[in-house]
Amino acid sequence: LESSKHRWELHGKITHHKKVSFGDSPTNLRKGMTVLKKLQSLGIEVLVEAEDLENYGRDWTRFHKVATCGIAFPKSTDEVSAILKACGAQGLPVVPSGGRTGLAAGAVATQGELVVNLSRMNRILDWDPLSLTLHVEAGIVHEAVQEFLRPQGLHWPVDLASKGSCQIGGNLATNAGGLRVIRYGHARRWVQSLKVVLADGRLMELHGPVEKNNAGTSLRDLFIGSEGTLGIIVEARLRAASLPKNRLTLLTSVPSLPAALEILKELRKKQLPILAFEFFRENCLQRVLEKTQLRPPFRNSSAAAVLMDLELADVSEIPESLSTADTIVAETEEQARNLWAYRENITESLAQLGFVYKHDLALPLRKMPAFVEKVESEFSQRFPGAELYLFGHLGDGNLHLNVVWPKKDPDGKLLSLCEKQNEWIFSEVVALQGSISAEHGLGLLKRKYLSFAKSPTELEMLRKLRKVFDPQGLLNPGKGIE
Amino acid sequence: LESSKHRWELHGKITHHKKVSFGDSPTNLRKGMTVLKKLQSLGIEVLVEAEDLENYGRDWTRFHKVATCGIAFPKSTDEVSAILKACGAQGLPVVPSGGRTGLAAGAVATQGELVVNLSRMNRILDWDPLSLTLHVEAGIVHEAVQEFLRPQGLHWPVDLASKGSCQIGGNLATNAGGLRVIRYGHARRWVQSLKVVLADGRLMELHGPVEKNNAGTSLRDLFIGSEGTLGIIVEARLRAASLPKNRLTLLTSVPSLPAALEILKELRKKQLPILAFEFFRENCLQRVLEKTQLRPPFRNSSAAAVLMDLELADVSEIPESLSTADTIVAETEEQARNLWAYRENITESLAQLGFVYKHDLALPLRKMPAFVEKVESEFSQRFPGAELYLFGHLGDGNLHLNVVWPKKDPDGKLLSLCEKQNEWIFSEVVALQGSISAEHGLGLLKRKYLSFAKSPTELEMLRKLRKVFDPQGLLNPGKGIE
Repeated sequence: LESSKHRWELHGKITHHKKVSFGDSPTNLRKGMTVLKKLQSLGIEVLVEAEDLENYGRDWTRFHKVATCGIAFPKSTDEVSAILKACGAQGLPVVPSGGRTGLAAGAVATQGELVVNLSRMNRILDWDPLSLTLHVEAGIVHEAVQEFLRPQGLHWPVDLASKGSCQIGGNLATNAGGLRVIRYGHARRWVQSLKVVLADGRLMELHGPVEKNNAGTSLRDLFIGSEGTLGIIVEARLRAASLPKNRLTLLTSVPSLPAALEILKELRKKQLPILAFEFFRENCLQRVLEKTQLRPPFRNSSAAAVLMDLELADVSEIPESLSTADTIVAETEEQARNLWAYRENITESLAQLGFVYKHDLALPLRKMPAFVEKVESEFSQRFPGAELYLFGHLGDGNLHLNVVWPKKDPDGKLLSLCEKQNEWIFSEVVALQGSISAEHGLGLLKRKYLSFAKSPTELEMLRKLRKVFDPQGLLNPGKGIE
Repeated sequence: LESSKHRWELHGKITHHKKVSFGDSPTNLRKGMTVLKKLQSLGIEVLVEAEDLENYGRDWTRFHKVATCGIAFPKSTDEVSAILKACGAQGLPVVPSGGRTGLAAGAVATQGELVVNLSRMNRILDWDPLSLTLHVEAGIVHEAVQEFLRPQGLHWPVDLASKGSCQIGGNLATNAGGLRVIRYGHARRWVQSLKVVLADGRLMELHGPVEKNNAGTSLRDLFIGSEGTLGIIVEARLRAASLPKNRLTLLTSVPSLPAALEILKELRKKQLPILAFEFFRENCLQRVLEKTQLRPPFRNSSAAAVLMDLELADVSEIPESLSTADTIVAETEEQARNLWAYRENITESLAQLGFVYKHDLALPLRKMPAFVEKVESEFSQRFPGAELYLFGHLGDGNLHLNVVWPKKDPDGKLLSLCEKQNEWIFSEVVALQGSISAEHGLGLLKRKYLSFAKSPTELEMLRKLRKVFDPQGLLNPGKGIE
């Protein structure tokens, strides 16, 4: 018996799909005409103006040209079901859509698909204070959920930068992460039940309104994070939790990534509850200072900074080792917001520099220093003229590695270079058992890199499984595993 | 568009399977001879003595006659893989097995299957204090995990009565619940990654050693709770958590189930952290007092009792409404253990009375009073000569409803009566959107009742999905959804 035969082996090759693999635009647009007429006859709201197609046909990514035959806005589960039946009858593919804040092109229509936007299904259906569950329609905006819960001292413990516009359906379809995964985990953890519509229009209620349901294999978690490829999530029961009782925000300078991990290690050892543990390199801070009115936080320059939210009642509980000159402790909510501003302005500050290519990597914490050292040492040779910006949710092992050129990329040469270098970066990640998409998902953006995401066996199983739920292959084709 | 067309409809019929639907014993025993020889030639440990077959061929249930061709004890993932390949070559079905503490006959061999027991794969492979994850083989005993973590102030937050003998692989294959689901959720929540062997011997590593991995639809949670029907879990990375800092144990008498729920409501409203919230009727307490040396806890007799563990530092935090004469607050660890003894002795005390038929139901908390009232009012007419014992993890909506006759059931008449009445009980549960198996799973025990567990659409999907992973249908046939 040879151990090597069973090793988890990833191929690690970029696969080049044919450009049009899930129906070409003209054909889909023609089918779309028939479907749109049918939907109008059923009284379902649809939009077909060019501006609406562009607006609702994509998410926050800008790598693809939008092509959609129309946008449908169902007002009920029955309307979602009718839409999918109409599309099934014509063989028209569908892109499920919500607040469109995704960063992996998971909700972008490029081949004339019908976009099904859940925004009109935004009601709170029920609140149960005994089980602390909130029953909502999928199109409700994330912040509306928090606004309902906050007066009761509760929250849905998924903290996202896009909370003002992202929707619960999208949060669940992508298993959203965010700033407090280290304390609360991903969106997956805070879901009791789902209602989904399958590609053929049939409905499934998964788990139901109970805390415990082990009556057979559960499909609930399979749909969470499946990027709209298995069905459309139309309702969910969300689990609420108490708001943290205390929050102490600290910003401290560190000489290196290993030094940041030493702080984490000490917090873990002392069992101090960590709400957030963010890291950013000094050049990220510099760009933020240039772009904003913020003052430099540290007296001395430093290689990097760690921003922490700890669930502590009192500054006396802060570990000795953090009581240095270069640690700033927020004593008011306003001061805390100001410290967070250094972190929250990074993405926007970089965006203005020129062309930005973003990575969303996860690594085992222990292996992160080796990874970062390797990337930093080879970077300038592999990306001539670019600068590397490192930041991310370090406590979760999630690194947002941004490659930035101080110029635009009108002819797509920089994008090509980045995509070519992905083979190098992803191979390093996979060799260290990391993930090429920690929180954003695969979407259209990473379909070339599936062999870095899953083993051949897992890919085979996932492809067969997708066919079980959607034999015609009409749900969000080209996204995720296929 | 008619709403009714899409309603989640359960058929609610008991289905009568042919007695032998997954290969008959003689055929499997013959195939077993070939497989066992092959395994011995590979140096894999096997047992075939009658006593071993009986011991390793079943779980804690006693409803089925054991028939197994042999027990294999793999020592490595490679051996598990070799065993499944050998079985696949012969078409011999397999029953995955661990500590055999299940209550749904999920690990019982009745048709000459090969039992694959993971007990020899019980190593701790790695501990990562930075990410608080413990990498173990599936056959490690639950308590061994806790013993490793406890000195560090940590635990794996799944609290099971069977912890001394149940194994992690079984905990995950059944998505174990237990006493602290209200605080920590099911086993599912505390798993980072899994390694599974598929029916054809191939290996899948699901999720990997990172906190965050959204690179495509995740199969990890599909395997958790699938009762060994999709693959054999051979390794897992478990997430550890801090032990609760404080624990205050309270026992209080209540006049009714709604009164117990009022206490829960108040605790929720005050956001007091609840570690456990157990309920038992007065007759459960009486049987415990008769069986044990415990003294009556209350001065006056009462309809029921609630036992709580609250994560409070001080008795002053206990709500006013609980400061009655009939509330006992444990002031020492020993007193806490004594209060828990009333609850923990219920199952054993009932077992000695005669014939016991157990239910493991979940109901939405708000609907539980109506359910209990209905069951209690119709009980004596439907179960003449029997007594109803109600207890369970009330805070999670999980009720263990025990039907007890003061006599044995040598001819199976009482069992038949109970199974006949299941149609009534399960229909009531389903009408209230509850679950017919809150934590035990389906196993062999509930295969007649699949239509009460899932909708026809979900059953169809699960059956197709099972075929994807196990085309020959050799993994734990007859258990779970099939």
